[in-house]
Amino acid sequence: MIVITGASSGLGAALAKLYDGRKEKVCLTGRSESKLSHVVEQLSSNAQYKVCDLANPLEVKSIFEELTSAPETIIHCAGSGYFGLLEDQDPEEIQQLIQNNLTSAIHLIQESIKRYQNQPLNLVIVMSTAAQQPKAQESTYCAVKWAVKGLVESVRLELKCKPMKIIAVYPGGMSTDFWSTSGKELDTSGFMMAEDAATMIAGALSSAGNGFVSDITVNRS
Amino acid sequence: MIVITGASSGLGAALAKLYDGRKEKVCLTGRSESKLSHVVEQLSSNAQYKVCDLANPLEVKSIFEELTSAPETIIHCAGSGYFGLLEDQDPEEIQQLIQNNLTSAIHLIQESIKRYQNQPLNLVIVMSTAAQQPKAQESTYCAVKWAVKGLVESVRLELKCKPMKIIAVYPGGMSTDFWSTSGKELDTSGFMMAEDAATMIAGALSSAGNGFVSDITVNRS
Amino acid sequence: MIVITGASSGLGAALAKLYDGRKEKVCLTGRSESKLSHVVEQLSSNAQYKVCDLANPLEVKSIFEELTSAPETIIHCAGSGYFGLLEDQDPEEIQQLIQNNLTSAIHLIQESIKRYQNQPLNLVIVMSTAAQQPKAQESTYCAVKWAVKGLVESVRLELKCKPMKIIAVYPGGMSTDFWSTSGKELDTSGFMMAEDAATMIAGALSSAGNGFVSDITVNRS
Amino acid sequence: MIVITGASSGLGAALAKLYDGRKEKVCLTGRSESKLSHVVEQLSSNAQYKVCDLANPLEVKSIFEELTSAPETIIHCAGSGYFGLLEDQDPEEIQQLIQNNLTSAIHLIQESIKRYQNQPLNLVIVMSTAAQQPKAQESTYCAVKWAVKGLVESVRLELKCKPMKIIAVYPGGMSTDFWSTSGKELDTSGFMMAEDAATMIAGALSSAGNGFVSDITVNRS
Repeated sequence: MIVITGASSGLGAALAKLYDGRKEKVCLTGRSESKLSHVVEQLSSNAQYKVCDLANPLEVKSIFEELTSAPETIIHCAGSGYFGLLEDQDPEEIQQLIQNNLTSAIHLIQESIKRYQNQPLNLVIVMSTAAQQPKAQESTYCAVKWAVKGLVESVRLELKCKPMKIIAVYPGGMSTDFWSTSGKELDTSGFMMAEDAATMIAGALSSAGNGFVSDITVNRS
Repeated sequence: MIVITGASSGLGAALAKLYDGRKEKVCLTGRSESKLSHVVEQLSSNAQYKVCDLANPLEVKSIFEELTSAPETIIHCAGSGYFGLLEDQDPEEIQQLIQNNLTSAIHLIQESIKRYQNQPLNLVIVMSTAAQQPKAQESTYCAVKWAVKGLVESVRLELKCKPMKIIAVYPGGMSTDFWSTSGKELDTSGFMMAEDAATMIAGALSSAGNGFVSDITVNRS
Repeated sequence: MIVITGASSGLGAALAKLYDGRKEKVCLTGRSESKLSHVVEQLSSNAQYKVCDLANPLEVKSIFEELTSAPETIIHCAGSGYFGLLEDQDPEEIQQLIQNNLTSAIHLIQESIKRYQNQPLNLVIVMSTAAQQPKAQESTYCAVKWAVKGLVESVRLELKCKPMKIIAVYPGGMSTDFWSTSGKELDTSGFMMAEDAATMIAGALSSAGNGFVSDITVNRS
Repeated sequence: MIVITGASSGLGAALAKLYDGRKEKVCLTGRSESKLSHVVEQLSSNAQYKVCDLANPLEVKSIFEELTSAPETIIHCAGSGYFGLLEDQDPEEIQQLIQNNLTSAIHLIQESIKRYQNQPLNLVIVMSTAAQQPKAQESTYCAVKWAVKGLVESVRLELKCKPMKIIAVYPGGMSTDFWSTSGKELDTSGFMMAEDAATMIAGALSSAGNGFVSDITVNRS
């Protein structure tokens, strides 16, 4: 079973299609019933979904309580964007950005650790190249992505010697709905397709012997 | 005029005493009327204070609206700690941590930029060495501090060519009230005194010709 | 054609076997004729090799001049280790370490750019997790690995908009000859096998659409 | 006694003048007898100098053997620049760059540790903002500066609990001879004056109680 958050569009939806096509059981989560069910309609009967808001820790808990089988992999794709000069940003939108990216990631990681830290589970946290460098006009977005990176690297220290592993994924800009809802107008025609990013990420996630790919950055060429 | 946030205790209070002793006008902010007024009682009649919660953008605005003279320097010390293994942390406390550290910093920086970006103002953002590395048992604290660092470094890119400057300060562990309220029990006897950190930071903040000290880390020896 | 430097042992030799097994033409380089020829004996007749010291820019040039077909991929694995407290390290060994890791990488990258920057070539630079963090008893080794990382990230900025891509690979400790020749005695029984690291790296190196996997870290689980 | 390397020009010479003016005993080192003696002529009779090449470990040793009193502070300013696209750089100049920046720093730090690690000595290593980020047209310069940063941060781990401290200083571009000898033609009129940088750095270097300023970045405003 592979749990995929943020699966109603973009990279999450593309990964869902990819793994479903490989006959993996997937459980998708997202905030929008209509979007999620639309994605699931395109998948096999193996796929299930669960509408939930990861900013609510009880809803995060319910995802895992209702799983019909134990997950081997959790891929956390949920997140949203918000851009522009800091002076032009709206405090409520910023609050939303923090909820959607930082609070959600904390809850998801916390719940995963509580349940699965003693199992050989792979917890894949999808961030952004904005977690790796500062960017003008992306100050609060960088802030929440840097936060998740700091969280992930700290939690890894706590998980040392545990079979559960955290894998960090940093994709560059993709051509998805993400941008149209972020308030930033830009030409995304040269951006990566979510399907291509999904292919590369799914291909790169691997382990062999006593090693595993722990960090992956995917960029536009 | 020097505005100091988080001035009701610890480093903020120590900086207030130091600058007041140098005959600088200071305006202190904090959430606790009683603590703030207690600090101000020990200062000269030049010192003023303003109770406010930086997590509320309107209260941040009111600090600057009520200043009796224009600030040359704003020192943002406000923040709180919360520690322990991620699995043991409480979602509401985490929410408070995000508010006290990330949301507050965003509001304070945003308001400062709106008002002063075209003036030669120094905005000093006090973070922590936890902004520079991951730490076990400090995962959410590292998260919010990494967030502020990502924010500061991104906003600097937006301020390029502006006279307003952002100075980043990263102090290591100090022996203050911070720890007793953070849920972490530890021996802070070898930690720095807030007064010593204040002395070093105030000494290091300087500019000469067309240069300025932009980043300072203070550590225990 | 895939050119692999440092192919006489460890990860380089493992990658050579892997790609040769996939019917790729490989050209191996290394400083030791005997070791290199021993590796090549185990490969198909497609494989060729070239003895050379990458610290000599003329020898680097000769590798590419003598290739029988144009390379699509160059994998730079060459390097050596040297460990211990800084106070105990020998200046001549340090000099050798710099030559084997930094000077070699500069020459290899420079020659690759001169020849291939306008072609869709993948230049894979294998470093170490020691390039990503400081480590006690590995000070000079970290120094040369941080150097290569700084070089790679800077050269990427110069190659923006060019079809040639640089891929950075950071493997953690592997159980190879590397350690026995590095002066550090340690139990490598929990380390990764070079063959496993090769499998993961070769699997992760991919591109799709207008994206590519640009950075990969492989760690022990 | 304050030992200053790279004191024949630029920041090193400016620091020498500053400390000599404060009645500190200084010992200057540099590779050029004529330049060094010219600087010393402008100083008090307290000042001494020693011509030496830090790339030679025996010459580094001789600096300290000939000191007339024990140093409290060593400020390592020696270094050189070399710029341009990597494809245009000359292998011999690159070799020189590595010697002047990386090899020299290793020898200086190693000798300092051997002699003084159990004394409360401050070893100040002056790098560059090029140690903190990648830069196009500065690939090999970034490489050697990243190397020194990796070295410093690793050696700090080895010195934990020792009274000797390493202070890292990262100045941005200064208007000095450095540029005219680096092969890069650029307008340095907006750069910092070495004298201003010296004033800020000397002001920022401080300790109080059991804390000290461990890292300082100085930038153009």
